[in-house]
Parts: sequence; C-alpha cells; structure tokens
Amino acid sequence: MAVDSGRGDRVGWVGTGVMGAPMAGHLLDAGHPTAVHTRTRERAQDLLDGGAAWATSPAEAARDADVVGVMVGSPQDVREVVLGDDGVLAGASQGAVLIDFTTSDPRLSQEVHAAAAEQGVAALDAPVSGGDVGAREARLSIMVGGDAETFARARPLLERLGRSVVLQGPPGAGQHTKIVNQLLIAGIMLGLGEGLVYAVRAGLDPGRVMESVAGGAAGSWSLDTYGPRMLEGDFDPGFAIEHYTKDLRIARSTADELGIPAGAAAQAAELYESLDERGFGDRGIHALVLELCRRAGVTWPGGPGE
Amino acid sequence: MAVDSGRGDRVGWVGTGVMGAPMAGHLLDAGHPTAVHTRTRERAQDLLDGGAAWATSPAEAARDADVVGVMVGSPQDVREVVLGDDGVLAGASQGAVLIDFTTSDPRLSQEVHAAAAEQGVAALDAPVSGGDVGAREARLSIMVGGDAETFARARPLLERLGRSVVLQGPPGAGQHTKIVNQLLIAGIMLGLGEGLVYAVRAGLDPGRVMESVAGGAAGSWSLDTYGPRMLEGDFDPGFAIEHYTKDLRIARSTADELGIPAGAAAQAAELYESLDERGFGDRGIHALVLELCRRAGVTWPGGPGE
Repeated sequence: MAVDSGRGDRVGWVGTGVMGAPMAGHLLDAGHPTAVHTRTRERAQDLLDGGAAWATSPAEAARDADVVGVMVGSPQDVREVVLGDDGVLAGASQGAVLIDFTTSDPRLSQEVHAAAAEQGVAALDAPVSGGDVGAREARLSIMVGGDAETFARARPLLERLGRSVVLQGPPGAGQHTKIVNQLLIAGIMLGLGEGLVYAVRAGLDPGRVMESVAGGAAGSWSLDTYGPRMLEGDFDPGFAIEHYTKDLRIARSTADELGIPAGAAAQAAELYESLDERGFGDRGIHALVLELCRRAGVTWPGGPGE
Repeated sequence: MAVDSGRGDRVGWVGTGVMGAPMAGHLLDAGHPTAVHTRTRERAQDLLDGGAAWATSPAEAARDADVVGVMVGSPQDVREVVLGDDGVLAGASQGAVLIDFTTSDPRLSQEVHAAAAEQGVAALDAPVSGGDVGAREARLSIMVGGDAETFARARPLLERLGRSVVLQGPPGAGQHTKIVNQLLIAGIMLGLGEGLVYAVRAGLDPGRVMESVAGGAAGSWSLDTYGPRMLEGDFDPGFAIEHYTKDLRIARSTADELGIPAGAAAQAAELYESLDERGFGDRGIHALVLELCRRAGVTWPGGPGE
C-alpha cells in the first residue's frame, strides 16, 4: 500500500484554511490522489476544482489514505478531528501515517501518537513556521516529532511543503520546538515594541532609527519584515494576534509544567490578550507597538487611529 | 583651521580600549595628525608606534585639534575626560568639534553640548554599534545627535569609521537611538535565553532546534552570531555583560524618566546583574542562557561548568 518514495501515496487532508489549503494543493499538484475535508466546504472549492475528492468527515478523508494531513486551528480542533467519533482515527487504515501540522500542545501530540499506535497508525507532530507565504511557496520550516522510521517514510512528502524538514525528537518534540520558536518571537516582539515606543517618546524618527539599528546586533527577521509595515501603518497579518495568543497559552502552560521561566512570553501574552480583547485579534503581531503606545500615552506615527 | 573635506583635520583622541584604539588607528592611517590620551599609556602604544603623539591629558589631546574624539567606558568617564579640570573642554580651541562615541546618558550628552557651545566648541554624541570587530573593520553603525551643520562637518571623518552614519536628531538623539538598540537586544536575548532553556528542559537538542528556527520568523542576528558559540560553550565576548549592564541602567533610567515601560529591559537587567555579581561580567551577553539554566536547575549542554 505504502510506496517508499512517497510519490504514489493517497492523501487524506483535513483543514483548508490559509495554511492548509495551499499545503494540500502542493500535494495534489504533485500527483497525489487527495481527499479533503474541512468545516466549511466552500473553503475547499479550489482544491475540489483542482481534482481533489470531497470527504464528508475527517474519518472519510482518512479512509483508504496512505498519509493523512491535518492542519486545523487549535488543540481542541485536533482533538475533535483526530480523536472524535468521526475523526481521522475512526477511518484510518492500519499502516497509514497521520501527520498533524497544527501548532498544538505537545501533550496532546503524545496522546494522539499513542491512540494512533493502538490501531496500527503511525503519527507525527509536524508544526510549521513560515506563515501563509511559506505555505504558498512551499518554503515552510517543518519541526517534526515522532519515530525515525515514520519520519523517513513521510519525508519525501514533507519536502514538498517545506524548505527545512527536521526530525526534532520523539512524539511531541515537533510541538516543543515550535514553542521554542514562539518564545523567541515573544522576546523579539517585546523588545521591538518597547524600543520603538521609546524612540517615539524620545522624539526620534522610528524609520531613521531602524536605518541605524536593523543591520547590526539588534537586527531580526521581525524588524526587517514588520518594521517597514509598522512605519506605513499596515497592521494586516502576517501572523494574526488571535493565533499567537493561542500559541502563547500553550507555551506558558507547558513551560509552567516543566518548571521553567518564560517571562518574555508572560509579558507578551498580557499585551496580546489585551489587544485581542480590544478587537485587534485579526491584526498582525506587530500591532504590539500600538498597545505599548496606548499605555505610554504616545501616538504611533504610522497610525492607525482607533 | 577646519577643512571641509575633513582630510586635513588634526585629531585629538581620548580612550584607546578595544573600541577606541582601532577607531583612532583608522584616522591615523587616513593621514590625520593624531594626539592620543588614555588612562593607561601602554594601551596606546600601537598608536604611538604608528605615529600618534602622546598627550598627557585630555586637555592636551584637544589642544590644537580640529576634531576631538572621545571613546571611554561610562558616563562618569565622559564627565571626567570632557568636563573635568584637565578635560577636553579645558584644552579645546574655539571652532573645534567634539565627538563623543561613548555609549552614555542622553542627558549628559545635552549637558556636554551646552558646555561646549559656551566656549565655541560644537559637540556631537555619536555612540556606535558593531563591537570590536566593527571598530577594527570600520564597519560601525554610528548614531549621531547634534546640529546638521556640525554633522556635515564631521561626516567625512565619521565615514572612515562606520558603514552607517546617520544623524538621528538634536543633541542626545544619538544616545537615545543607542538606547533603542539596547532595548531591542534585551528582548532578543531574553527570548533567546528562555527559548533555549525550554528546549533543553523539554529534552530537545538546542543545535537541531536552531536549525529549524534560525531561518524563519524567530531569526535574529543574535541567534546567528551567538547560537553557534553557545553550542560550543564559548562565552567569550563579543559584547561583555559588564558593559551591557551599564547600558541597561542608562536605558531604564531614561525610559523611567520618559514614563514608558521597558519590561524586557528590566527582566534582562536583573538577570545580567546577577551574572555580573557572580563574576561573569567579563563574559559575553549570550551567557544569559547560563543564568536562566541555573535558575531552572537545567544543565546547558555546551557547558562551561562553574
């Protein structure tokens, strides 16, 4: 059934949002027979037009699939579409591989791995970074947890989706790695927000400040990417606050369980939750500067007003 | 006396540490007659061997100079070598330009500017980033505060020292910009330290984690530069903790006066001061991970033991 090169794999896919749709599209384009399910059928229309089959449930998407990909919104969604009555594991065949791309809780990934193993299904947790652009351009970084054999089996398919595909360790290790990624971003965004509010408050021109600092030791992908957008008052996501607050909740809960500090994440979470409550959840994470400005009684030169 | 191109300027220079010595060297190499003073004469020996004249005091270094450069350790040092009895302003001629490269307090820079103006000396604050490597390779980023005319006058000379030379605003604006730079670094280092401690505690291989995260949204100059050193247990500076704690004190004091939050800087300062007190002041700022590991009861795989 399974083909070693991964070329002939029949694919089941659950979740066709801004990330899931282009990812499933790459597999379809590569010639994999693909059955898709998603909550709102019209969001799968492009894939169906491209030749994918519609599945009425996650279980049906998994039926007869060699590899089942899941890309949904939250750990609760994963629990439902994988472990639920009509979930992937209710339909998956023995020998199938389940790859959960959702950024989720490492403990849930371990639970899914164990539940899958009980019925002869191998599972990988494989959260990604790179955003919707990375998904569209198949340039994601894919952080994988699971056993080496399953990883080797899934690798050709994963390489159709990402430019960096790394087995990080046992089940859950992919999620743990994504958490590290989000902890790094928390510090970067916090420092960037505080630094830029300082700049404005001190009477500096933030764009000119970026000119001096971006190329040196204070430089970051976030400054390069979000800096120009912030200056233009463009707070479209990128990476939406409502998704990041979810990730930070997982990160903080896991860090707490591991007994380690996550002070930058705690500060960032408080600021982002405040933005979310104030209706900025669909804005990009670089809108942090707006919240810091508001608290400091400073007007961000690039607007927008509220 | 003053030459517009800056080519014939006679230079006085105060402070020949790891930054000041190569900076003065570039001016000497460019043909500027240079008189140097520093606390410990032997640290100026290479410059003297290269043709610089020895000055027995900052005042003497400034005597007959068109441009006086100062690169010392702290605001206290600036106060002494610029405003003190034998300081630069006690020797400087009317029409001279004083450029203070020290990372210092913006309020002190304004005070120096005013004191200099009283005796017909134009002053710029011009703190730099880029470290000892940037100083040696004349690739510093120089953040300048002062008036446009003095900046234009000093620019050819500044361009012998840096790849980025930007007038940020009036006196003190250079220092404010450098503070922004240090606030950005505080967030980056805090997130990086917390993320890597999380990685180790979660059983991940930090090097493999870096492979997954460094190229994406969590990427930074600090991760690229310090990540490999941390993995090798190499905590040599780079940028020494004892200097950064000074900068963070200035940053927090100024932020406090401006009435704006600097939470990342506060957290980073507490950690770095603890490292300093424990004898790690001469280590690089990437040793933050060691302090976070210690507090979490985690052993950093790259050592060193204590």
